[in-house]
Amino acid sequence: MADPRFFEVAGPFSLAEIAAMAPAEPGPGADPDARMTDVKPLDAAGPQDVSFLDNRRYIDQFAASRAGACLVHPDFAGQAPEGMAVLLTAEPYRAYARVARAFYPQPAAASGVHAAAHVHETARVAGDSRIEVGAVVGASAEIGSRCLVSANAVIGAGVVLGEDCVIGPGALLAYCLIGKRVVIHAGARIGQDGFGFAPGADGHLKVPQIGRVIIEDDVEIGANTTIDRGAGPDTVIGAGTKIDNLVQIGHNVRLGRGCIVVSQAGVSGSTHVGNGVLMAGQAGLVGHLRIGDGARIGAQCGVMRDVERGETVIGSPAVPVRQFWRQVAALTRLVGNGRGK
Amino acid sequence: MADPRFFEVAGPFSLAEIAAMAPAEPGPGADPDARMTDVKPLDAAGPQDVSFLDNRRYIDQFAASRAGACLVHPDFAGQAPEGMAVLLTAEPYRAYARVARAFYPQPAAASGVHAAAHVHETARVAGDSRIEVGAVVGASAEIGSRCLVSANAVIGAGVVLGEDCVIGPGALLAYCLIGKRVVIHAGARIGQDGFGFAPGADGHLKVPQIGRVIIEDDVEIGANTTIDRGAGPDTVIGAGTKIDNLVQIGHNVRLGRGCIVVSQAGVSGSTHVGNGVLMAGQAGLVGHLRIGDGARIGAQCGVMRDVERGETVIGSPAVPVRQFWRQVAALTRLVGNGRGK
Amino acid sequence: MADPRFFEVAGPFSLAEIAAMAPAEPGPGADPDARMTDVKPLDAAGPQDVSFLDNRRYIDQFAASRAGACLVHPDFAGQAPEGMAVLLTAEPYRAYARVARAFYPQPAAASGVHAAAHVHETARVAGDSRIEVGAVVGASAEIGSRCLVSANAVIGAGVVLGEDCVIGPGALLAYCLIGKRVVIHAGARIGQDGFGFAPGADGHLKVPQIGRVIIEDDVEIGANTTIDRGAGPDTVIGAGTKIDNLVQIGHNVRLGRGCIVVSQAGVSGSTHVGNGVLMAGQAGLVGHLRIGDGARIGAQCGVMRDVERGETVIGSPAVPVRQFWRQVAALTRLVGNGRGK
Repeated sequence: MADPRFFEVAGPFSLAEIAAMAPAEPGPGADPDARMTDVKPLDAAGPQDVSFLDNRRYIDQFAASRAGACLVHPDFAGQAPEGMAVLLTAEPYRAYARVARAFYPQPAAASGVHAAAHVHETARVAGDSRIEVGAVVGASAEIGSRCLVSANAVIGAGVVLGEDCVIGPGALLAYCLIGKRVVIHAGARIGQDGFGFAPGADGHLKVPQIGRVIIEDDVEIGANTTIDRGAGPDTVIGAGTKIDNLVQIGHNVRLGRGCIVVSQAGVSGSTHVGNGVLMAGQAGLVGHLRIGDGARIGAQCGVMRDVERGETVIGSPAVPVRQFWRQVAALTRLVGNGRGK
Repeated sequence: MADPRFFEVAGPFSLAEIAAMAPAEPGPGADPDARMTDVKPLDAAGPQDVSFLDNRRYIDQFAASRAGACLVHPDFAGQAPEGMAVLLTAEPYRAYARVARAFYPQPAAASGVHAAAHVHETARVAGDSRIEVGAVVGASAEIGSRCLVSANAVIGAGVVLGEDCVIGPGALLAYCLIGKRVVIHAGARIGQDGFGFAPGADGHLKVPQIGRVIIEDDVEIGANTTIDRGAGPDTVIGAGTKIDNLVQIGHNVRLGRGCIVVSQAGVSGSTHVGNGVLMAGQAGLVGHLRIGDGARIGAQCGVMRDVERGETVIGSPAVPVRQFWRQVAALTRLVGNGRGK
Repeated sequence: MADPRFFEVAGPFSLAEIAAMAPAEPGPGADPDARMTDVKPLDAAGPQDVSFLDNRRYIDQFAASRAGACLVHPDFAGQAPEGMAVLLTAEPYRAYARVARAFYPQPAAASGVHAAAHVHETARVAGDSRIEVGAVVGASAEIGSRCLVSANAVIGAGVVLGEDCVIGPGALLAYCLIGKRVVIHAGARIGQDGFGFAPGADGHLKVPQIGRVIIEDDVEIGANTTIDRGAGPDTVIGAGTKIDNLVQIGHNVRLGRGCIVVSQAGVSGSTHVGNGVLMAGQAGLVGHLRIGDGARIGAQCGVMRDVERGETVIGSPAVPVRQFWRQVAALTRLVGNGRGK
């Protein structure tokens, strides 16, 4: 069970209920009335726990698991150990997400403005939102229903939050408009000046940054990530896009809908990224590029040119993934593998 | 117009006034008395807006723009659309910076120490400075005239700020001396212990870090950037240097004057960087190097050796830029481009 | 002397005392009763200062130094200038660490909970700990003896801190259990949700993150570093491991004991790292890897496969270090060095 100091488990749920919420097809012999009390990783699960197999790297753990039930792709179900009820689905990780959310629903925090929060007299805060201790809400800001503004977060003047947003401890939101169901983790910095200087030998002139940050619905932004506001155009994060920790998004960048941006990646100013793009960890994009829908940018990739719709690139400078691995192979042939002959 | 929730526009200004402040030469037929009400990007500007063209990537937008006036290099002025007044300058981006600052001057914040700020009784704060809610100013710290210390920022004991500094929300300044007109964005961490450990199998011994951070005049430091104080020598950021978000500056580093350090770059301990050096995004320098004046370090570059004055390097490990592109071409010849024959 | 605004120097100590604490062997002619008043770098030290030589890069500074005494390896002692007392040791940097800690002991902060700190009524704070202004300690949290929770830090509900911990300004600790003598610098974010989404064309489903972060004794964590809590398993940082600034540690990661992780490195989810592993700056590890004890991961290295015990790798993708330098040499032969013939 998850540490009760931090998490409260719901349930139990019957196997039939779990199969319905996943959704998944119970395998032969599964008892629909068996009661499951928790979700656990394969190597920690016991007879009353639901687990999942999503990565063939863990197939040995699957075969040895004591889990009472397991969400699994039909291709692997044959390797289930004796006594495990398999729950068959083509998308075991998505199914697990739904089941885990049933066992661990987001607890509702008590609403209200803490006596040691600081809400400007001209700000509007929905009565069912929660503003924690030390949080600051600036002049004319608007906080929608059921929002949580955590301790010591700062919401700048004029900022608008839609319904059901969660703003982490110590985060900053300035010069931005935030949609619904947006999650912004601790220490993220949204809306400060973009890095706009007109360079020169007698001093780099600062260029006023007069755009905003627009964050659409269902976006999640990681801890200590930074998103600069636009220089004139806005910086835009499309609906459903998920951004990890320590990511940098420069001014005037547009990220499309449903993108995934992994930790420590960076997007330079004025680059436009399509919908459903994956950027892996520590990838970097120079400025003023166009990245097509569904493109995949590999880890540590250095993108210096436009990327076409659906293209997969990796390397620094970025090349098509097939070319990259051929280059790696060619280099290895040239010099050997460093372990002697 | 920039969103009036966040920005207040000054003006209008006549074309003659704008040409004078830029400075720029009005092209033939420009009406010196035409009144301009705002600055806007090429694709958003209308007949009363001033725009600029600084990157030939946007020349099509320029040719199609409805901007009433545009700051542009003489080489491109011939492609201006009918009805646009061109304002000719060899440095259109610097000219735009000056014009935009006239339309969007930095608003002066009201001075005073917020009732819920915490200024130590031995600290000295100039009467015309502003200390916002939740900000902390430690013992014996000194805050110069017309400074802004934003909400929840922490100024450590003994820290000195010169005149006209802006410290962003939640930033930390410790063990440092700050010049005039320095801007430090939200969440930047200045002056914590350098990463000094004497490693050993029976435990890594922490080495006291007894230097400071010295930040000279007119420096700007991005959001969530970290600058460690010196181990014994100081860490120094030279006058006019501009540092972007999420940059790491190690202990004992010296950056010269007028450098530009782009997001997610890192400089390891005891490396000395000359004046006017450009470090692009995600570049990394190992420790104890010497980088000459005017050097240019490419994006994602991994610098493991000294770089000469004026040299341009890229790649990991860093090589001269010409060599880098030859290597890229040679690899491509070896293996093809991954798109078939 | 270190700036007295920030540091207080102890001592003086006699050369005999210094040799004993290092420990080191005084060279011929060293006066055991000579009194030393400070530690300083080679180029700043005078006749009453102790310095050290640990990097042959600085041997010219050593030969020209005016330091009264110097911790040095016997191999280099012969190059000491006239009048310098050499203190011979096989580990001059570790010896310096001990001596410097005698001159600059960590000052003890006054204990107590600041009137403008916010400690939940159900939290337990040891009477000899210090909770600074604006800090928040959540429900049921436990703070051990002699801890310092700095200004505006946030300690979440249920978090446990062992004895002698230092939590920097504005840091966040949530869903975590912290050992003894742990140092967490300003703005570090420990325990937020891991980046767990089950991706899909109709929206990426958030997966509940129900593990914790376990930080063992004697760990140090840098400024603005982020460590996500586990998805189900815990994220674990082993005893004595030192992590620099702006590092990302993903969910379910296990770092062994005595590792060193340099700035801007990143470890993706579910990767397990052995004991005594060195990760240099900006290195990145993909998820689900196994890294053996004592492995060394070079700067900017991109690790996409398991690394064996004691192996040294570098490059992106990572290769054994010998192979890497052969590749670099082969590329240079292919194309020249970019400086002409």
